[in-house]
Formats: sequence, structure tokens, C-alpha cells
Amino acid sequence: MMIKPVFWKNNKVVMIDQNALPLCERQLICSDYRQVITAIKDLTVRGAPAIGVAAAMGAALGALSIPAEPVEKFQKTFHAVCDEIEKSRPTARNLFWAIERMKEHLGSAILSGKKNLAGELVKEARRICAEDIEINRQIGQHGSKLISDGDHILTHCNAGALATAGYGTALGVIRTAREQGKKLHVFVDETRPVLQGARLTAWELKKEKIPATLICDNMAGFLMQQNKISKVIVGADRIVANGDTANKIGTYSLAVLAKSHRIPFYVAAPISTFDFSLKTGASIPIEERNECEVTHFKGAQSAPGGMKVYNPAFDVTPAKLISAIVTEKGIITRPYSAAIARLHKGTN
Amino acid sequence: MMIKPVFWKNNKVVMIDQNALPLCERQLICSDYRQVITAIKDLTVRGAPAIGVAAAMGAALGALSIPAEPVEKFQKTFHAVCDEIEKSRPTARNLFWAIERMKEHLGSAILSGKKNLAGELVKEARRICAEDIEINRQIGQHGSKLISDGDHILTHCNAGALATAGYGTALGVIRTAREQGKKLHVFVDETRPVLQGARLTAWELKKEKIPATLICDNMAGFLMQQNKISKVIVGADRIVANGDTANKIGTYSLAVLAKSHRIPFYVAAPISTFDFSLKTGASIPIEERNECEVTHFKGAQSAPGGMKVYNPAFDVTPAKLISAIVTEKGIITRPYSAAIARLHKGTN
Repeated sequence: MMIKPVFWKNNKVVMIDQNALPLCERQLICSDYRQVITAIKDLTVRGAPAIGVAAAMGAALGALSIPAEPVEKFQKTFHAVCDEIEKSRPTARNLFWAIERMKEHLGSAILSGKKNLAGELVKEARRICAEDIEINRQIGQHGSKLISDGDHILTHCNAGALATAGYGTALGVIRTAREQGKKLHVFVDETRPVLQGARLTAWELKKEKIPATLICDNMAGFLMQQNKISKVIVGADRIVANGDTANKIGTYSLAVLAKSHRIPFYVAAPISTFDFSLKTGASIPIEERNECEVTHFKGAQSAPGGMKVYNPAFDVTPAKLISAIVTEKGIITRPYSAAIARLHKGTN
Repeated sequence: MMIKPVFWKNNKVVMIDQNALPLCERQLICSDYRQVITAIKDLTVRGAPAIGVAAAMGAALGALSIPAEPVEKFQKTFHAVCDEIEKSRPTARNLFWAIERMKEHLGSAILSGKKNLAGELVKEARRICAEDIEINRQIGQHGSKLISDGDHILTHCNAGALATAGYGTALGVIRTAREQGKKLHVFVDETRPVLQGARLTAWELKKEKIPATLICDNMAGFLMQQNKISKVIVGADRIVANGDTANKIGTYSLAVLAKSHRIPFYVAAPISTFDFSLKTGASIPIEERNECEVTHFKGAQSAPGGMKVYNPAFDVTPAKLISAIVTEKGIITRPYSAAIARLHKGTN
């Protein structure tokens, strides 16, 4: 059965509560856009494409609560809702992409004299969700060409169905390769501090009986040294014009290690993850999260009280360490700037 | 007040229960050598030099329980106790070094006609403990020459007072540099899966008010990329004839990252950590520990039930990635083989 972490049902946004996984499979049902904001902030829904879908649906929920007339006031209030949603998390490009698309859709709907503006926004949010699954399938098709029978693939964090509307980006590539009959083994970085690998990727792979082994993040280098990893594939939170890529903290270290061991390092992400406005990764805002994520696990404390903590949620991998980026339009390789400029042109 | 993780008192071995730290400071008192074996296995006492001291004291406890006569039977039974203790953990050289020293001491005591053989063994175990503290002070003196005022030093696992008889190897270097008035900041890798950094190193540094920041292991590369780390210093569990060094899992990844960022990477360890019999690190036995260390923290489960786990407790850093090794006899640098051969000669 397909894993759908966020979807629209009866004018509500239904989410898999990813904080409860893997021990408990339960849903959060949001009837107010503020609940969606909280869910994005507290990681009930996470993963750049899934955050994008949740943001669009949150905006649609907000639209349903705004009086339809006068149209100008509707638009102004909708924009205010969008501003609130945009403040939920700073790094994933898809959040801002989805909100921009919703605002543009409202603008077009107003221009073409549509009556039920909120209804239009709901349709657009659902379209973003449906498109994302299709896009992931295309990423899977393209990316699977990079995967060989017998590969031992390392992945970091969760770039799976749970990180998207369904199917996944990096895990989508692995799923497609498996559907093609390739035999694979996946090494799953547990991904401190929030353990998206141990909690979410392990859960997805186990559910689909894809052979997988869980490791701590600091074991990846040792596995590479022993020739136990043939490829690395990860998702992305923001890819800028030169190919520099923000992704879950730890990705940069993996890319350096992969380079040092001559192991291909792939990024899989939809075009909605690209930020064509930023020239290099140095401009990507990196979210710092609460120190409790590092010092506590499910209430159990590991570090001494009052210990100073640094907890950046993402890092930036320079383009030169990335062997290829897989998008729904195909695989791009160095030099990335030209290829990304062509992708940008294609979106206009 | 000096932290003493393992010491002899009233014919018992007293240990700080390191599994209870940092939340609870309590002692384990062992009156039987089998308790010492359990404490080594379950990490109540850990860290290569501390394991050596505990093993020697465990052997001494065993000796106290053996009938003094006939001497030949005493020696045979003592050797059997030693064999049991040696099976507790496979990687740290100091365990085997300490047991060999205890056996040799018994041999000498018998030859010189000593009457109270158990008493002699107790004295030797206490001597190993006292010497270790003195050795750490010497390591600190030598190693502090590598540390500059204003350094930001990354350390992994716990190579502190808790990992030795007191004072520490890598943290001993940091302590001495501080005593010399150098201003330092320490970044502490939490060190998955057992969190020796978060639980033990953070506790030691906090206790002594040494400025420190806790990070997840996968953040080290990002800090290096941002020029926030000027040096890396770690301890060692076994150093072989060519300088290859086994240490806590994750050390190898750090060494690769340090090399890639041109950051000096230092190892601090006593000569008892050297295994002159092994030519390269490929021959070092690497302990694999229980998967629960990865999937659970204090009873809270993070990964799905039945998930396959790989949990090596150590990795091997090739000598070429190590900028210098600090011992009680001074600092050695590449080529290590010659310098280590000289150390070996000095011990004979």
C-alpha cells in the first residue's frame, strides 16, 4: 500500500504523524492552517517536497476560512496566511515554491473572474500533491539508470515517500531500481539528531521488504573504507544556481567521504527544490533547531543539564562533490550552472 | 576534585558507574573479579587505559580468592582468571598489556621467593593505576605543545579522566594546555551509539568549566567547512607498528574530514596502547556490539523492531591521516614505523 504522508480529505489536511513513527502509525487531521504550521515546525510532516505539499494545503485550509468577498480583501488575507506559513521553516525551497505557486494561482483565478477562489486554491493544492507523486516516479525512472544490480547504496535522512507526497526522491530511485528487478542493499544512516533514518527510512524499507541495514552516521566512513558502499544517494532541501545543495546535516561529511573513497554521490530532487535566485550555497539560510533534539530522546536525557549545544539542521554540499543531480526532467551533471539555467528556462 | 574512575580500596575495586553518568554520580564496588569482567563488558568502565587498570585490579581481586599454596596451583589458577578477564573485550590493547604485566609480575615474585603473592599482585595493580595518572600528566605536557591559545579543538568519544585512571589522554592534553593559561574551546562529538561524548566528555568539561559545545557526530564536517575547528585530538584503543590506530567508531571519518580541510589530526595515548606485534591496522580485531545500542536509548526505541543493524564499536585510522601521536615519551610523527620501533625498544 502506498505511503501518503499528507493528503486532502473532506476539506481537512490529513498527515501521517511522523514523530510517532516507527512505533505508532497514527494520523493528525488539521482543520485550521495554524495546525499545519505547527505540524511543519514540530516535524509531524518533514522532507522538503512534503513540506511544500503541506504548505500548499495549509494555505488552502486558510483560504476556506476567509470570507469570499470582497475579492481584494480575500487576496490580502490569503497573502497574510501565506506569510505566516512561510515562517514555519527557513531552509527547504519547496515551502516557498509552493506558497508562491498558490499566490500566483489565486492571482490568475481572480484575473480570469473565477467565483469560488477558495475552491480554486484547494484544487491547486491537491494538484501540487498529485503532481509531486508523478514527479517522484519520473525521478525514479531517470535515477534508476544510475543504479546497478548488486549495488550497496547508502542514504542519509529520509528522502522517501514520507518526505514527499508519496514514493520519494532518493528512495524513489531505489524503489524504481527494485521494480526493475535490480538486487540492492541499502545502508541507512540513522541521521542524528532527529533520527529520520532510523525512524522513517528504516520503517519504509522494512514495510516494503527492501534489504537494509541501519548504521550510526559515524560508521559510514568505515563502511566506505571496507568497500561496502558502492553509491550514495540523498535528497535535497534547496539546490542553488551553481548546484550547491543544502540537505540534512551530515550530508556534506558524507559527500567528502564519498569523494575520498571515489564513490559516486547522487542527489535526487524535484525542480521545486531549486532556488534559481541564489548563486551559491553560501546564501542558503541554515535552520538551527532546539538543543533538546541533541540532548534528549523521548524524554531521556543524555547530556549534562545546561550543556551548550550547536544544532544546525542542514549543511551545504558544494556542487563539486556531487556526481549527478536527478530531477524529473532527467539527470544533470557538472558543470551544473549551465544545466540548472536550462532547467530554469524550462520552468518559465 | 580529581575524577578517578577506577581505584582500589579495602581490597575491593571501586568504579564510577559510567553508564549512570551524567545524570547520576554513583559507584560500583566489586569484591569479585567476575563483577569486574561484567563492568568491562557492559561499559560501566570503558576507555582503553581505564580498561587496563580495571583488568589489572580484577586480576588482583581474583588473586585474593586463590589459596596461596601450592604456588604452582596459585599461578595456574591466576592465569585462568586472567584468561577470563582477557575475553571481556577484544580491541583495546591496554587490557592485554595489563594482564600480561600482572602475569609477568607474578612470575618474578615467584622467582624471587615472595611469600604473599596475592599481596604482590594487588600492589602491582595499584602501581599500574598510579603510573597511568602520571603517564597522562606526561602526555599532557608533551601534547600541550601542539595546542595554541585560541584553538577550537574537536574531540570524539571520551579520552578523558574517565577513560584512564584519571586526568585523561586527549582531554589530558586539553587540561594541561588550560593549566598553562591557553584559552580553548572544545567541540564535543556526542559519539553514537553509546554517547560517550555527550554523557562523559561533556560531564568532565562542564565539571571543570572548560568552554565546550556539544554536537552530533555528523556536524563535524560542517564545522570544519566553516573554519570553526582548528585541531582534532582523540585517544586510541590500539596503535600498531606502522601507526595505524583503532579508536572509537567515527574516528576514521573525522580523520578523513580533517585531512580534506587541512586540519591537524592528533592521537594521544600511552605506550601501553601500542601493539608492537601487529604490522598494520588490518589485523586489529574490531568488536561488534549489540544492536540495541543503536536502536534504543534508555529503553526508548528509535528503529522499527527487527531492523538489521551493523554496530562496530571501533574503526581504524590509517597512519597517513594522523598528524602526530602523543605519548608519555614525547610526540612522534611520520614516518611512524621507525619512531614506534624506537618506543618498542625503550619498553624492552
